[in-house]
Amino acid sequence: MSLTSPLHGVVPPVCTPLDSRGEVDTASLARLVEHLIDGGVHGLFALGSTSEVAYLTDEQRATALETVIGATDGRVPVLAGVIDTTTARVVEHARSAAGLGADALVATAPFYTRTHSKEIAQHFRRLRTAVDLPLFAYDIPVAVHSKLSPALVHELAEDGTLAGLKDSSGDEGGLRRLIGGLGGRAGRASGPAPHFSILTGSELTVDAALLAGADGVVPGIGNVDPAGYVRLYDAARAGNWELAAREQGRLVELFAMVDAGPEADMGRSSSALGSFKAALQLLGVIACGDTAFPQIQLSAESVALVARRLRAAGLQPVR
Amino acid sequence: MSLTSPLHGVVPPVCTPLDSRGEVDTASLARLVEHLIDGGVHGLFALGSTSEVAYLTDEQRATALETVIGATDGRVPVLAGVIDTTTARVVEHARSAAGLGADALVATAPFYTRTHSKEIAQHFRRLRTAVDLPLFAYDIPVAVHSKLSPALVHELAEDGTLAGLKDSSGDEGGLRRLIGGLGGRAGRASGPAPHFSILTGSELTVDAALLAGADGVVPGIGNVDPAGYVRLYDAARAGNWELAAREQGRLVELFAMVDAGPEADMGRSSSALGSFKAALQLLGVIACGDTAFPQIQLSAESVALVARRLRAAGLQPVR
Amino acid sequence: MSLTSPLHGVVPPVCTPLDSRGEVDTASLARLVEHLIDGGVHGLFALGSTSEVAYLTDEQRATALETVIGATDGRVPVLAGVIDTTTARVVEHARSAAGLGADALVATAPFYTRTHSKEIAQHFRRLRTAVDLPLFAYDIPVAVHSKLSPALVHELAEDGTLAGLKDSSGDEGGLRRLIGGLGGRAGRASGPAPHFSILTGSELTVDAALLAGADGVVPGIGNVDPAGYVRLYDAARAGNWELAAREQGRLVELFAMVDAGPEADMGRSSSALGSFKAALQLLGVIACGDTAFPQIQLSAESVALVARRLRAAGLQPVR
Amino acid sequence: MSLTSPLHGVVPPVCTPLDSRGEVDTASLARLVEHLIDGGVHGLFALGSTSEVAYLTDEQRATALETVIGATDGRVPVLAGVIDTTTARVVEHARSAAGLGADALVATAPFYTRTHSKEIAQHFRRLRTAVDLPLFAYDIPVAVHSKLSPALVHELAEDGTLAGLKDSSGDEGGLRRLIGGLGGRAGRASGPAPHFSILTGSELTVDAALLAGADGVVPGIGNVDPAGYVRLYDAARAGNWELAAREQGRLVELFAMVDAGPEADMGRSSSALGSFKAALQLLGVIACGDTAFPQIQLSAESVALVARRLRAAGLQPVR
Repeated sequence: MSLTSPLHGVVPPVCTPLDSRGEVDTASLARLVEHLIDGGVHGLFALGSTSEVAYLTDEQRATALETVIGATDGRVPVLAGVIDTTTARVVEHARSAAGLGADALVATAPFYTRTHSKEIAQHFRRLRTAVDLPLFAYDIPVAVHSKLSPALVHELAEDGTLAGLKDSSGDEGGLRRLIGGLGGRAGRASGPAPHFSILTGSELTVDAALLAGADGVVPGIGNVDPAGYVRLYDAARAGNWELAAREQGRLVELFAMVDAGPEADMGRSSSALGSFKAALQLLGVIACGDTAFPQIQLSAESVALVARRLRAAGLQPVR
Repeated sequence: MSLTSPLHGVVPPVCTPLDSRGEVDTASLARLVEHLIDGGVHGLFALGSTSEVAYLTDEQRATALETVIGATDGRVPVLAGVIDTTTARVVEHARSAAGLGADALVATAPFYTRTHSKEIAQHFRRLRTAVDLPLFAYDIPVAVHSKLSPALVHELAEDGTLAGLKDSSGDEGGLRRLIGGLGGRAGRASGPAPHFSILTGSELTVDAALLAGADGVVPGIGNVDPAGYVRLYDAARAGNWELAAREQGRLVELFAMVDAGPEADMGRSSSALGSFKAALQLLGVIACGDTAFPQIQLSAESVALVARRLRAAGLQPVR
Repeated sequence: MSLTSPLHGVVPPVCTPLDSRGEVDTASLARLVEHLIDGGVHGLFALGSTSEVAYLTDEQRATALETVIGATDGRVPVLAGVIDTTTARVVEHARSAAGLGADALVATAPFYTRTHSKEIAQHFRRLRTAVDLPLFAYDIPVAVHSKLSPALVHELAEDGTLAGLKDSSGDEGGLRRLIGGLGGRAGRASGPAPHFSILTGSELTVDAALLAGADGVVPGIGNVDPAGYVRLYDAARAGNWELAAREQGRLVELFAMVDAGPEADMGRSSSALGSFKAALQLLGVIACGDTAFPQIQLSAESVALVARRLRAAGLQPVR
Repeated sequence: MSLTSPLHGVVPPVCTPLDSRGEVDTASLARLVEHLIDGGVHGLFALGSTSEVAYLTDEQRATALETVIGATDGRVPVLAGVIDTTTARVVEHARSAAGLGADALVATAPFYTRTHSKEIAQHFRRLRTAVDLPLFAYDIPVAVHSKLSPALVHELAEDGTLAGLKDSSGDEGGLRRLIGGLGGRAGRASGPAPHFSILTGSELTVDAALLAGADGVVPGIGNVDPAGYVRLYDAARAGNWELAAREQGRLVELFAMVDAGPEADMGRSSSALGSFKAALQLLGVIACGDTAFPQIQLSAESVALVARRLRAAGLQPVR
């Protein structure tokens, strides 16, 4: 499904279920895709950070992307993360993703290296030229350790290099200024320039981002409760902001599952990814909740905490 | 005016006008207080970061606070910043502020030193015991270089040490989790515990913070357009979120004045403080727009940019 | 004692002993000064970070400085830290220190605020003009969260604003480049410009700094073993680098006392300051090893660890 | 050449010359290897950060490594960087490097992801098991944004997982403590445990690191002047520390070439890598000084600055 209309709505970063040997569990992944589409999501983002893309070999990445595209079967657009250190390596992932049928690409600024803003601009322009698919910039300073400047995003939006932005920077004020700079809520919908889609990765403030004029959300915990995020999105689109805020409040409570793993033992990232996968296993969607090596696994006690969070949010574990 | 009801609404951090010798211009400061109260604000925060508290001697701080309290004359509560490196020094500022008639105190975690979370807890408890005024924690990592943990704020809210929080951390997701943890929008209003006031310092996402259940806002640019923030607050309280978002959008545009000073020459902080003061001078509220030494001053060209921003937002310069 | 010759050698940052009420224990402080001068040190740095200056009220600072100057009685120069957020406040400390008879001043860049390099230059120039004492820049990013640029230090050295630098940045490569830029080891000793003293605050790599051409060291743990640092310095001046490295190795072992306090409970800064003071108490130099509020105190178990470190380094506890 | 004796001495990270299309220029690379071995270096580190490994595709990496190994022909050991985000991807690089005949592997902690210390331990252990070559940990926080803790390095040294450490953390005090903890200079040479090689990547303080007991150095600018670093190393081994410091001083001056590119236009990393390659081109070692895309290239003016630095250090450009 090509991106005929601007990307919008709920576009979860699809978890990558693994079997006990650490290989991609394609049957579980196909069930997860079904779970998400059943929940009403508007698109899927494969091979993102929440997909543990940084832990997957090129072959595993291809398997995961192929499975997502196959299971989706054109019902919603599939965006593919092309995550690697610099341009030449990212182009290779982009060609692979295009070959597998991805509808759009999502790329970060270079990382590991220290890269100047002018170099980041060259990076995105080269990617756009090398592979003819809509390109989204993925602003995720917690991973790449630089922030895309508003001026750079604006420049690359204006000249058509970028089709949109996935903003996981946590800088909500900056996002607000960016939306304003692109013509605001009204301007963006009606302007002569091609629409630039802004998706927030801040899953705890989606009502706020939509109120500010964002187009959609890429919520990690949307793997667990896609229907919740769709209700939130629909309420916002209907102008029922009180309802949107209530649904967001419920999802904030659910999100507390990310604290399940004790920080002293495993770090917040492994705890968050582990809790999403544990929840998906508890809900019967995937077979095994393991995260990729070398991440520490959640203890049985931590999984029990996840189960309690699910029940408190009205989601019933089946195991 | 004592804080008989929980603190809420628009509580600007009051700029400290200086004369050309760098001394507090009390006449201008009194006019600024009038400008803010005329705008409908619900409280005033003297000696905050936007007040350039870190640049003022103890004597200048006392002059500024005394002027604000005198000019306010009990019409709204006056909160006093007690900003210094560690507990013993902060207690001295707190005693001074209490003696001058402040209605509440606002203190950060220790800075310059590196301080453990348990030590920060001791710091706030000692402050609360030493001076009998409602105490607000001021979470401003950009200045003190540590973030108050949600667990710590929760603990100090529960045991009555803190009357509230001024959150300038920019971590809107964390704020959302904190509000949820304190019982959410409904729980906070009706619970048996004393109300804990949450004020955001993120002036670009006030509609969002209010939608999430925050009690109010401490907007630096509220010095320039207090009535705009009051309209935003009133719209939110009336449940008219679309109107709130439009007003926020206008204020986001106005806020672009902070970019007036070229980054290469003066840094963002001096540029922001300088633009607020330049705007107040252009509006005829204060006599001189100078910021405190050693900050670089805005050029005439930058001041002209500020004037354009004012006009674009519907505020007419009088000079 | 005025700074008639360029500052050099071992210049410990003098700990500030406190009594059980948290007040400056002047008798212990006088004994500590004696302990340091007995050890052969070449100068004393009062009111530095290791002196817990950020924890002391203005009155306590004056008491500590007065005590150090009185006990020193002109035998070595006394440098006074004038640590506060910005220029106007620092000038007040500088005037107080000058009035009490300090031989030189040590000031950081502004902190709490965000300050541009041009503003930092104005800050040091104003300080130098306001109080006629040799001025040392104190580069301590861990406390003030900005680093003095080599270009800035060079400019302020050339024009005579600064008499020297206390480098606690930990950037040994940058220090090396700075020394080279100032004419290197030979150039600095013989050039027409007034000598610019470079003191390292990196107490674990003093042999290296001296080999590179630094003039001296400001070692926190020099409070505990001043004679060891003097031996290290003398060996280096005699060109006996192997002996200097062995002495440095012994002091590195001794330094492990800073890990005495468990990180989970008190943080590294309180643990380090607490271990120095515990060692001084164990050695019979000061009466009470307490650090200033709100720092967590070392447990008896941690103090026992400090005692073991002392013994292992050949220093015998007397309590 | 297998690592029959502990790794020591000068082990430059070999630059990867590129042609104008951005492909590996194998003829130039072979000449560079000759230039380095002629200079007397003790080993070569291919595919390190200075080799622009993060910019090379897997195929380009293989070409570069194969060329270095072939040109070296067993005269010195060749270490291969295996730089990628997490374990599974790094293992693939390690297998490739082993297949090409590398003598040892150099791996960082995971990056892009946030990884707990226990997970980093699992990462190195799995690498060591997966490919039977001596494994060096590469501590480079500026690239991977975490620092290897001394406790972790100690643990992995003791149990034989690691053969050594390449320390590019810039934390010279921490390095000193680590050497001390491993038994110091004497202990490390004579202990019953297998020798653990510590190489510093801090090219400006090599004399200091050797004085402290380090085994060698991995100097980026050693590409340009390998003989200088060999002289420095030999002087240190002979106990002639004054000579070592003088040679280091000359190399510090030479290093100033990294400032050739204006920071506003290209950033420090591209400027440093560009200056090394420009110098190699000026010296007639490689054909083209281009750095990999998307890095900005040095201007002719900047290259002229590099030429001046070469001449000042006694190295004559031939073009």
